[in-house]
Amino acid sequence: MEIKTSTKFVAEMVGTFGLVLFGCGAAAVAGADTIAGLSGLGVLGISFAFGLAVVVFAYAIGGISGCHINPAITIAMLINGKISVTNAVAYIVAQLIGALLGALALQQILSGQVAGFTAGEWAYGSNGWGPGYQSEYGVKSAFIAEAILTFLFLFVIFGTTSKWGNSTMAGLAIGFTLVLIHLVAIPITGTSVNPARSFGPAVLAGGAALSQLWLFIVAPIVGAVAAAVVWRLLEKRD
Amino acid sequence: MEIKTSTKFVAEMVGTFGLVLFGCGAAAVAGADTIAGLSGLGVLGISFAFGLAVVVFAYAIGGISGCHINPAITIAMLINGKISVTNAVAYIVAQLIGALLGALALQQILSGQVAGFTAGEWAYGSNGWGPGYQSEYGVKSAFIAEAILTFLFLFVIFGTTSKWGNSTMAGLAIGFTLVLIHLVAIPITGTSVNPARSFGPAVLAGGAALSQLWLFIVAPIVGAVAAAVVWRLLEKRD
Amino acid sequence: MEIKTSTKFVAEMVGTFGLVLFGCGAAAVAGADTIAGLSGLGVLGISFAFGLAVVVFAYAIGGISGCHINPAITIAMLINGKISVTNAVAYIVAQLIGALLGALALQQILSGQVAGFTAGEWAYGSNGWGPGYQSEYGVKSAFIAEAILTFLFLFVIFGTTSKWGNSTMAGLAIGFTLVLIHLVAIPITGTSVNPARSFGPAVLAGGAALSQLWLFIVAPIVGAVAAAVVWRLLEKRD
Amino acid sequence: MEIKTSTKFVAEMVGTFGLVLFGCGAAAVAGADTIAGLSGLGVLGISFAFGLAVVVFAYAIGGISGCHINPAITIAMLINGKISVTNAVAYIVAQLIGALLGALALQQILSGQVAGFTAGEWAYGSNGWGPGYQSEYGVKSAFIAEAILTFLFLFVIFGTTSKWGNSTMAGLAIGFTLVLIHLVAIPITGTSVNPARSFGPAVLAGGAALSQLWLFIVAPIVGAVAAAVVWRLLEKRD
Repeated sequence: MEIKTSTKFVAEMVGTFGLVLFGCGAAAVAGADTIAGLSGLGVLGISFAFGLAVVVFAYAIGGISGCHINPAITIAMLINGKISVTNAVAYIVAQLIGALLGALALQQILSGQVAGFTAGEWAYGSNGWGPGYQSEYGVKSAFIAEAILTFLFLFVIFGTTSKWGNSTMAGLAIGFTLVLIHLVAIPITGTSVNPARSFGPAVLAGGAALSQLWLFIVAPIVGAVAAAVVWRLLEKRD
Repeated sequence: MEIKTSTKFVAEMVGTFGLVLFGCGAAAVAGADTIAGLSGLGVLGISFAFGLAVVVFAYAIGGISGCHINPAITIAMLINGKISVTNAVAYIVAQLIGALLGALALQQILSGQVAGFTAGEWAYGSNGWGPGYQSEYGVKSAFIAEAILTFLFLFVIFGTTSKWGNSTMAGLAIGFTLVLIHLVAIPITGTSVNPARSFGPAVLAGGAALSQLWLFIVAPIVGAVAAAVVWRLLEKRD
Repeated sequence: MEIKTSTKFVAEMVGTFGLVLFGCGAAAVAGADTIAGLSGLGVLGISFAFGLAVVVFAYAIGGISGCHINPAITIAMLINGKISVTNAVAYIVAQLIGALLGALALQQILSGQVAGFTAGEWAYGSNGWGPGYQSEYGVKSAFIAEAILTFLFLFVIFGTTSKWGNSTMAGLAIGFTLVLIHLVAIPITGTSVNPARSFGPAVLAGGAALSQLWLFIVAPIVGAVAAAVVWRLLEKRD
Repeated sequence: MEIKTSTKFVAEMVGTFGLVLFGCGAAAVAGADTIAGLSGLGVLGISFAFGLAVVVFAYAIGGISGCHINPAITIAMLINGKISVTNAVAYIVAQLIGALLGALALQQILSGQVAGFTAGEWAYGSNGWGPGYQSEYGVKSAFIAEAILTFLFLFVIFGTTSKWGNSTMAGLAIGFTLVLIHLVAIPITGTSVNPARSFGPAVLAGGAALSQLWLFIVAPIVGAVAAAVVWRLLEKRD
């Protein structure tokens, strides 16, 4: 029996909410070098936060909605005929709402610090590039990294969920791929490969985060579409 | 054949004992920035300690008691009719005893340091908030974080153990969710989402840890009940 | 068809060789705070080294020998009638040889540093306690920690491989338990819970490592026997 | 139905491309001690980058090509009759092309830093040894480490994919073995155990990286062949 679109909508919304709260939350609350006498998460810990969030929602809602929680994935699935246009639109709306709610929850938590909280540029785990952002990579590096890494993300997604994949382990492999993507790209763009994940924080942070949002919509979609085309060819010939 | 309540009691007690000894033990023994020339665990290592403890007991005792080792989970399961009132009471008693024994074992180990050991406020991995605790978040942040994160914890638990889940991977996904929760909340409350885990250390530490214990009972239960209601609705309609 | 004891012997020997080379090797080669401009492994990284070594050999040789690679496990299995006396003796001999070869390989690698290598007390990842060892815990803490943590190790091993366990995930859960044990006990004893793992480095290091070896034989066996008794009782009644 | 060699070629090429981009990329972009206020990856994070890359491609392309993405593995499989000579040659060519493309993508990204980028000796995550490289181990240590660790890598690969293995968990165990290998060998050689992974960066870096490339071809093949022989003997007798 086909699961109702509204149930899938709730799943995608909660999943994207969780991805942003866990991933951006880890970066904003616990990312820094030192946190009250403890080593902060650093690049490795933030990478696990985003990647494990995909692992856990893959197993929690994968059977309901497929656990896209990422418009670039939904668009790639639409291109390869694995989701209807109606559902794709519903998914993307749910993802954007979930991401915004996740960023809002994070904002509420951060604002409750005893010493007060000042939101800097690129607050709430926003993505970006250029002077003042992480290791200061330019827009060329940012675009190449986001496009190629989204290509590899979707390549693994199509591979693990294809007829040649292992359905039990797919969620783990896909989430670990997001860990890997962050291990490389946090110093470059903070790592998006997901327009919804960039959208939520950027709306609340405004400024540079918002004016640079376009790249985190365009580059992931370019990479995702390329992977969809490659996999359609691979599956057709064998 | 139904497993005896007393066997489940032993499983829940040992499991919660292990959760507290591994999780709070890692924080208290090896958490700090530097440990005898080695990097200490920091936020990432402590997060893995709590989360992997749930993973390993999920596979060790999941087939016996379901591996709640957390009163908030037991209450959510009671609300959704997945455990009897008698068993729920037995589980919670076992969890509280196990947590207390875990904190006692930790106290014995810590007290054996050559240079002697002084228990500070919030000792033995106690949860807390406010001035002097971790990154000094206020009670509002503490309550929101504990409630929302317990909601997400139970959302994943219900999802992975529902008819749409994968029973082989459920334990891994649930434990990784506890990793994620700690990645965000250690600087805020030390992370509870589990009244028993807070109870054991607070009883031995006394002081602020004990007077703040109420929040780590109320907030997790609020979040857990909300998730139980949402999942009951989702499962009914599909 | 029963697998030959000599095949099991090779499996246990190579597995224990790998456990010591990966675990003690990671500690001795890459453990320190900073390594040539990179952050060293610290407590978290060394914990993963020992625990993941058990994970990988559980899946590589579990189907051949059960992957004990630890005399305390072999003795617990002997007590609960899951291995013959002949095989138990063969296993323990193989484990001791493998551990010694692992420590020897590590010694060869370390001795090849351009600047030369001086083996300190407790070299090659040896276990120990007291003044000068890690966080300087006394013998009481060392014994309690080793005994209780080995109890939990065997509790998980019996649970995951019992009729209530999941055979696919058992290896992962058992290895993660060894990660957890190290997360707590590295500052206390360096973490043994395995007489063979302590034996190899102690023989080459001599001195304090050798004179303290008795504790890492006695305490793990005490904990392992206790777990064997508890599980025999649990399995009998249900 | 046998999958076309050209499909396998694409799989091996993309997989090795990903291994180099994720592994060497993590080392070159995010490896250092501190990255813009965050803790860099260090030995632990770089180890996870290489190892998890094998995990994800094992599940993405394992069903297509077996996911060798390493000429030493292909040669060991050839020796034990698990791949034809034609396919082995195609695999190795695909691996070398993929590794070169991965290093090229990394070079493009690094060159886009706002402050400009200067490639040092052993750039792009190149392997090496001796004065100036990591912890300055000599060629003897480098050769022993690479040969023994490749032996253990292939031992796990043959074991987990043998009749005694678990096909669902094999990819995880094999990838975790590569994590372990890096945990020990990054300070020694940067860790290769894979001629293709060394080839890509060395070609672009030139200098010492290129003149030392021979060791990362010879030593891994020696270790891989030894493991192939041992496993052929083990499988024959039982």
